[in-house]
Amino acid sequence: METWMRLMASDGSIVFGRVENGYLHEYEGLDQPVPTGAVLSLRALTPLAPCAPGKVVALWNNFHALAAKLEKPVPSHPLFLIKPAASVIGSSELIRRPAHYAGKIVFEGELGIVIGKRCREASVEEAESAIFGYTIVNDVTAAGLIAENPHFPQWCRAKGFDTFCCLGPAIVSGFDWKRARVVTKLDGVERQNYPLDDMVFSPAQQVSLISQDLTLEPGDVIACGTSLGVGSIVDGATVEVSIEGIGTLSNTLGAVCAQGESLAAVEGAA
Amino acid sequence: METWMRLMASDGSIVFGRVENGYLHEYEGLDQPVPTGAVLSLRALTPLAPCAPGKVVALWNNFHALAAKLEKPVPSHPLFLIKPAASVIGSSELIRRPAHYAGKIVFEGELGIVIGKRCREASVEEAESAIFGYTIVNDVTAAGLIAENPHFPQWCRAKGFDTFCCLGPAIVSGFDWKRARVVTKLDGVERQNYPLDDMVFSPAQQVSLISQDLTLEPGDVIACGTSLGVGSIVDGATVEVSIEGIGTLSNTLGAVCAQGESLAAVEGAA
Repeated sequence: METWMRLMASDGSIVFGRVENGYLHEYEGLDQPVPTGAVLSLRALTPLAPCAPGKVVALWNNFHALAAKLEKPVPSHPLFLIKPAASVIGSSELIRRPAHYAGKIVFEGELGIVIGKRCREASVEEAESAIFGYTIVNDVTAAGLIAENPHFPQWCRAKGFDTFCCLGPAIVSGFDWKRARVVTKLDGVERQNYPLDDMVFSPAQQVSLISQDLTLEPGDVIACGTSLGVGSIVDGATVEVSIEGIGTLSNTLGAVCAQGESLAAVEGAA
Repeated sequence: METWMRLMASDGSIVFGRVENGYLHEYEGLDQPVPTGAVLSLRALTPLAPCAPGKVVALWNNFHALAAKLEKPVPSHPLFLIKPAASVIGSSELIRRPAHYAGKIVFEGELGIVIGKRCREASVEEAESAIFGYTIVNDVTAAGLIAENPHFPQWCRAKGFDTFCCLGPAIVSGFDWKRARVVTKLDGVERQNYPLDDMVFSPAQQVSLISQDLTLEPGDVIACGTSLGVGSIVDGATVEVSIEGIGTLSNTLGAVCAQGESLAAVEGAA
């Protein structure tokens, strides 16, 4: 297992690399995992979302427990929508309430798959080797918009707002997702705690099946869908999504968020 | 009115610029409309999609005539989905039938808005000035997938396949869309012929309203939605979408397409 982060230096430049003992060993990039030789102290760097996806493919109804609760059959193909690049923020960045929306905003703690290699019509084996690593996603949703128009469910709009895709704090390669759980806390109170081995489509199956439809590029993220315990975020509340081995993704809705928390939240960064 | 194209040179490099009398006057780019001084013969260049959008925002139910036919009320906010970057192809490129989909594939001839400046929470006036120009879109759809799962309409999947967003052949700035019509021919037979002034949300309203939700970037495209006359494309059939003043966008489904047609189709290129 290796932990990877993307951070901003004081001059505004962006660096990506492997984190070890408080230092970043810089690499060319996700798609070119070649060390540049530079080693930088994490203390001088500001964490960003750990990758810059061109798109985020977000799954709906991908956990048996949630399907059972919703009384929906599990799907025969991943059901997805697309969240745009501008929706992505990193850990400790603020989720912004849309100016013209006063309705319910919900959190969804999820596992995120980070693509490392261009992937088109990949077999499950090819898909497995195209996965760079795993991160944590809070798939934020303006729940009141999904069914606002009775003729057209607005999945892309409800989930596509700027700042509605929280990613981070790190990417972990070689991560054994099968033994992990997603734990979501709202203002410190546990709201989700579900096992990832309850997934309908495994990460490699998701990558393979989605790549039959559309080309996945390095840095793209697939949000694996959520399970039981989704709930509302009131303005000013903080959502922390944790996966043991990856860390904690922490984001506050619409109020000033404490800075400098995210480094400590990355396991192995200290 | 100026006509803009994006083309590939014989060495594989991509050039963008203003077209006049068979020559391309190269510019830095959409977001930096500064001439480089280079003037290239169009004959030595291969046309591409006229921009490389990070995302395509595609509207549903944006024409009064189609809403009336479908017996749906016109919406109070643009209803949209997102087509990913990899779905974009240029005029004369092939639409590929997805390997695992034997169902109905339909054409939708549309006006495309090309964004010239980053646009976030823009007023209608700011939105108007952020529009670089207009192009033509064939918003290709695997119609059989939209309602395949009764619990989740698959708009992004049905419209998001690689090659399912035909764009081109050119962008025209200063274009008076209000007086224009979209004419779609299937293997030479007219199937759509509708006036753009029947739109529910004008281009500037679309850009302004969508920019309240998500940031639009230079090169992004909004597909304005289609009107009456949508129909199936059988394998090997050619769809030509024309807007007088912009040109003709021609794409064939799943069979070898004649090359070199698109330059002649750009009005003003000759």
